[in-house]
Amino acid sequence: MIRTILLTGSAMLGIALALPSVATERQRAWTLDDQLTVPEIRTLAIAADGKGAAYVVRIADRTSDKTVAVLRHVDLASGKTREWLRAAWIEDLRRIPGTADWSARIDKGEGVQLYRIAANGAVTPIVVHPETAIYGDSEGATYLAYGHAPLPTGVRSYSWSPDGQWLWYVVLDAEPYDRRMRYDADVASERAQRRSPGRATASIFLRGPNGKDRLLSTRPHGDISTFFDRSFVSWRNGEVNYDVMEVDADGRQQTMTMAVPLATGVPRVADDKATRGYWRLAGPRGGRLTSEGIGSMRDLVETLPDGSKQHYGRFPFAVGDGRASGGFVSADGKRAIAGFRTIENPRFGLVVIEKAKPRVIGGASSLNHCDFTAALDRGICIAQSQTMAPAVVSIDVASGTMRRIASVAPAHDGIAPLRTEPRTWVNRNDSKATGYIVWPRGYTKGKRYPAIVITHGTDADERFANQENQWEYPAQLLAERGYVVLLINVPASTQNADLKAIYDTWVNETKDRPPREVQDRIWLNDTASFEDAVSELIDAGVVDPMRVGIAGFSRGSQSVNVAMTQSQMFGAASSGDGGYLEPAFYPSLTGSYDTVYGGPPTDPAALPNYLRMAPSLRGKEACGAMLLQMANPYPASVDLYAALRAAKVAAQISLYPGEDMASDETHIFHIPSNRLKAMQENIAWFDYWLLGKRDSDSPFADRYAEWDKMRGAAPRRCDGSKSVVPD
Amino acid sequence: MIRTILLTGSAMLGIALALPSVATERQRAWTLDDQLTVPEIRTLAIAADGKGAAYVVRIADRTSDKTVAVLRHVDLASGKTREWLRAAWIEDLRRIPGTADWSARIDKGEGVQLYRIAANGAVTPIVVHPETAIYGDSEGATYLAYGHAPLPTGVRSYSWSPDGQWLWYVVLDAEPYDRRMRYDADVASERAQRRSPGRATASIFLRGPNGKDRLLSTRPHGDISTFFDRSFVSWRNGEVNYDVMEVDADGRQQTMTMAVPLATGVPRVADDKATRGYWRLAGPRGGRLTSEGIGSMRDLVETLPDGSKQHYGRFPFAVGDGRASGGFVSADGKRAIAGFRTIENPRFGLVVIEKAKPRVIGGASSLNHCDFTAALDRGICIAQSQTMAPAVVSIDVASGTMRRIASVAPAHDGIAPLRTEPRTWVNRNDSKATGYIVWPRGYTKGKRYPAIVITHGTDADERFANQENQWEYPAQLLAERGYVVLLINVPASTQNADLKAIYDTWVNETKDRPPREVQDRIWLNDTASFEDAVSELIDAGVVDPMRVGIAGFSRGSQSVNVAMTQSQMFGAASSGDGGYLEPAFYPSLTGSYDTVYGGPPTDPAALPNYLRMAPSLRGKEACGAMLLQMANPYPASVDLYAALRAAKVAAQISLYPGEDMASDETHIFHIPSNRLKAMQENIAWFDYWLLGKRDSDSPFADRYAEWDKMRGAAPRRCDGSKSVVPD
Repeated sequence: MIRTILLTGSAMLGIALALPSVATERQRAWTLDDQLTVPEIRTLAIAADGKGAAYVVRIADRTSDKTVAVLRHVDLASGKTREWLRAAWIEDLRRIPGTADWSARIDKGEGVQLYRIAANGAVTPIVVHPETAIYGDSEGATYLAYGHAPLPTGVRSYSWSPDGQWLWYVVLDAEPYDRRMRYDADVASERAQRRSPGRATASIFLRGPNGKDRLLSTRPHGDISTFFDRSFVSWRNGEVNYDVMEVDADGRQQTMTMAVPLATGVPRVADDKATRGYWRLAGPRGGRLTSEGIGSMRDLVETLPDGSKQHYGRFPFAVGDGRASGGFVSADGKRAIAGFRTIENPRFGLVVIEKAKPRVIGGASSLNHCDFTAALDRGICIAQSQTMAPAVVSIDVASGTMRRIASVAPAHDGIAPLRTEPRTWVNRNDSKATGYIVWPRGYTKGKRYPAIVITHGTDADERFANQENQWEYPAQLLAERGYVVLLINVPASTQNADLKAIYDTWVNETKDRPPREVQDRIWLNDTASFEDAVSELIDAGVVDPMRVGIAGFSRGSQSVNVAMTQSQMFGAASSGDGGYLEPAFYPSLTGSYDTVYGGPPTDPAALPNYLRMAPSLRGKEACGAMLLQMANPYPASVDLYAALRAAKVAAQISLYPGEDMASDETHIFHIPSNRLKAMQENIAWFDYWLLGKRDSDSPFADRYAEWDKMRGAAPRRCDGSKSVVPD
Repeated sequence: MIRTILLTGSAMLGIALALPSVATERQRAWTLDDQLTVPEIRTLAIAADGKGAAYVVRIADRTSDKTVAVLRHVDLASGKTREWLRAAWIEDLRRIPGTADWSARIDKGEGVQLYRIAANGAVTPIVVHPETAIYGDSEGATYLAYGHAPLPTGVRSYSWSPDGQWLWYVVLDAEPYDRRMRYDADVASERAQRRSPGRATASIFLRGPNGKDRLLSTRPHGDISTFFDRSFVSWRNGEVNYDVMEVDADGRQQTMTMAVPLATGVPRVADDKATRGYWRLAGPRGGRLTSEGIGSMRDLVETLPDGSKQHYGRFPFAVGDGRASGGFVSADGKRAIAGFRTIENPRFGLVVIEKAKPRVIGGASSLNHCDFTAALDRGICIAQSQTMAPAVVSIDVASGTMRRIASVAPAHDGIAPLRTEPRTWVNRNDSKATGYIVWPRGYTKGKRYPAIVITHGTDADERFANQENQWEYPAQLLAERGYVVLLINVPASTQNADLKAIYDTWVNETKDRPPREVQDRIWLNDTASFEDAVSELIDAGVVDPMRVGIAGFSRGSQSVNVAMTQSQMFGAASSGDGGYLEPAFYPSLTGSYDTVYGGPPTDPAALPNYLRMAPSLRGKEACGAMLLQMANPYPASVDLYAALRAAKVAAQISLYPGEDMASDETHIFHIPSNRLKAMQENIAWFDYWLLGKRDSDSPFADRYAEWDKMRGAAPRRCDGSKSVVPD
């Protein structure tokens, strides 16, 4: 049954994209439900004739308490949007070449399988492989999940030949549990493992024009190229190429490119040492596009197959960012389009590269997800910004013009935008950090406001209430409630050669820079950025220095945990599902910790390096109340909680449960009731600790008594002073 | 279907108990199968008329790969033994007062329930409660198991009134999974948890003479008195008394005794601060029997309800050891019998206490499990020794005489005993350690033999190939293969006041003695005992100093891991399922580690204490090859493995799997195929590293290549020198 809904009316057409949505008399404030139901765009595809497009969003559904995938079709002329399908999962939506149809991997209840989506929305199976394997945070899962429920997966990846006659695809088979003994590395890998791992094999098939399947290869569980990287499939010269990963007896991984002539169907090794970048962007000269250099301008370069480089000029953006749109090359190979992210006030756009000087498409808003017709003459993108809810826009490549077609989030269009000001802060160490101030609605100059810093690495950019940045910290609702919200990125590693070298030392786990310098220039410098950004607003009379909080998950939790055990500025914090930097993770992250700390915590020479920055060893230095929201009971986070409580510092660790006893919530929360509660817990926590407010209707009202006890027993209050780099 | 088997013939009757089994021309050497199938005695009960007895053993069954429980009946006149029932579990076998029948908790496939066993062996239900809860090392288990497969349990405990008219019993109900958030201590408890815990409630019922059940109380999951301690049920003055444990809001536990008048069935608190010893032995004056004092003789004391003490004299044994038989009081209250364990050459016997001077029953062999008629005039015991397989013996209490009735392990009676010599060693620190030398069969004086020390706390005593002591180190088979095997207890804590004070400091987690003294006097002193015991045999020309190994599980793994990182005497080791003393367990064992090390490993003042004894911090000090056999991938053991390998010391960690993906092998292995393999792995390991022998038929032959590599890369060989207490 296909439900038809009108998601947007003609009134919405033609709104200038550079502007936030126009306020109308019907506009309203943010609600908790708005925060929960911001759609996550997953995949989209324009029709071959360019007249329509299909796209998929994931949206929290409160009734089923599941995050559901919704397939919609939009008519690009009228903007009329229909909902075609709701399912547990929809991904990898693509045109089927030579037809007016699409294909996608869909879980309609039989696991993730490959389906055809006709131009009228009818969904029929292409490959259904009932012997699935699970991706998820659950007992027996083959591989972990990042932000979805345990997902039984039959078809893992697929690719159509350019003429649509051939189909390359991978199906998974969970291996039955093998009650074998395990030795050495196989045991060590379970050291910190919460759920029993499952295993699977992947079988790679080629389906020909006659509909017959040929098994090309069955790949082992350790082939992460096949299980994760989708194998980089390409079609050329009557062959299909794809990558597999071999692991030798000593555990060394090697990616190989296989080639299969369509005529024979017999695979051979085409390249036994394939090197792959994180993202492959094809250029118009058969090479690979990258942005090179540091600072605020980057060279756009195409590295040709012979190793020579074609320079396209210097631009204030970088291609190759995983959050930007991918790359496209026209059927004739002469036009390439690549997604970029700007360096300052980060937003996303497109660069068109032909013979002539590259041209940019995009403006003040971001173009994140895009697709184009085969000739790359027409396309669609999702446009959004901090204040503009996502919308489908059409792109005319030749003219570089865009046209708003339809809303992706009609309910959110009705929200009156909050004043959201992009900022670049320069801290005491001359480090630049980008981000936003989200001003409280009805901000009154001269009055001092409470403030909350929200941080997650570099994800504060022109996207709409993005979960990767805000997690379950409801930034907009906090602003509605009277907080000045600062979305602050950590200082970008590429801003100068020196910081780049520090980050390279960390990421590549070298000893190029000494541990203390790595600490000082990354996490302790993060703290300086947050403090100095807040100080600016304190000095300007905007923020009340005694009512400042901080929140961050994952990479952000590192920043928060360090800030809270170094600084006296933050009276309350919420730290989400992270524990990196704590001694407990040393055995799992030896190389990384050796870079950051110079050795294990039990090495007398390294221990002082831990004592100066590992949060759980600095419980006595903390003054603010810390909430640790967890998807998993990480030992490292439990240690931080225990250290804070041992020092009588107010702290709570809250574990959000999975679907059932045998599964966990994921790092990016996917269970709507958990998301709601986590947001409510954050509101209750900051309101209580920063404002002294209680809400008897909060689902966390029964925690106040515990918090009262902790408040009474706390050894000190934060005095607002800034951190001093420790000896 | 009840199979009848003749387990022993009349030829076995009347063999003197003080002697090992007589060697006959049909006797043979130990086999691997013998090691596997030594029966474990669980429970036994004499019939009311004293003419027969029933008992239960657990035996590894290779066909089903399960350890099965076998209920046997033995006619005390003829010794004729019949097998009445095989089941997954049989425990708590007791007479039903006033009848000729028994009752027992049995898992016949519907979980553990309460059954009646008629005098003819017919088994019929008494209480069947289908809503079970699981005890086991498995996902969702309510409580952990020690040595059995995940066991769904309907009836947890029961007690008959002395007249058999009333039945008190506890049934369990697993709680459905509650997808609730968890906070603070509930999260911290999952820090190191491998399997998702389940929860259950316990309901306590009283069944009256009319067959009607009355619910006395439903107890929460945290009431470990009800879930574990079996509630110490007693019947007196028309009331039934039982213990429950209350846990207050701050986590403090308090045991309370409840009393229920049979007439009303209404519970009341009889004692809100019940204090319980580890084992309650009733005396003939209504008090509690204990052994007091230190050294080689102990005072046998009855502490009366008014607090006064009745002294029965000094004896070379102690009552109250958990491994000895429990206590019995005659129906008239005038005679008490308590099990004891001797101080020197530890073995088990009985002491009969009446008005007159206590009398001892028992000789050179051990009487471990006993039961008596209500008048305590006749009884049965299981008798065994290091060289005598267990047998049922009858006891005439008045005369103190014993008579061998039937074998419990007929197959093992056919083994020609190995020469097994009890020894007491005094080490360089004047500490006494008891134990045994098991001599190789056909030992030739003047020839030097390889040797293996096997240690597990204080479990080397007069029991037959006891799994608690030997675990999966096949001591007897190793002796058959030409090793001198030393079963060595750690020095007994009660040998003098000073050592007692050290052990009290450790066990009670006080700071009465400084950490270094605790280390020196416990684990480093263990090492001295092992070294000095071996040295004696080296000096006597018996043992080859270059071919000495050591093995121990659990408490023994502590001794082994310390010995291997302090001493240069042991060329190979097998350490089983332990990791105590490693830094990784600090957060789970804070109080204990604070006593042993003086603080966490990240405390600069405590770190030197870790560096001097934590095995994983002394990988570079190790010279011998270490095998770590695990039922669980303990982080602590993985760390030791990693530290050894990082120092290029030969090491292997082997994880023995559970029944399925969602369960683990238990600390005491219960899966026969794992037990066999673990023994074979130990044989292969010691043969390879100590003797340089390979066996291409070993199931571990495929590991030799790996071991060859490690041997080639090892930085040093053990030079046979003794440990020096570190600075």
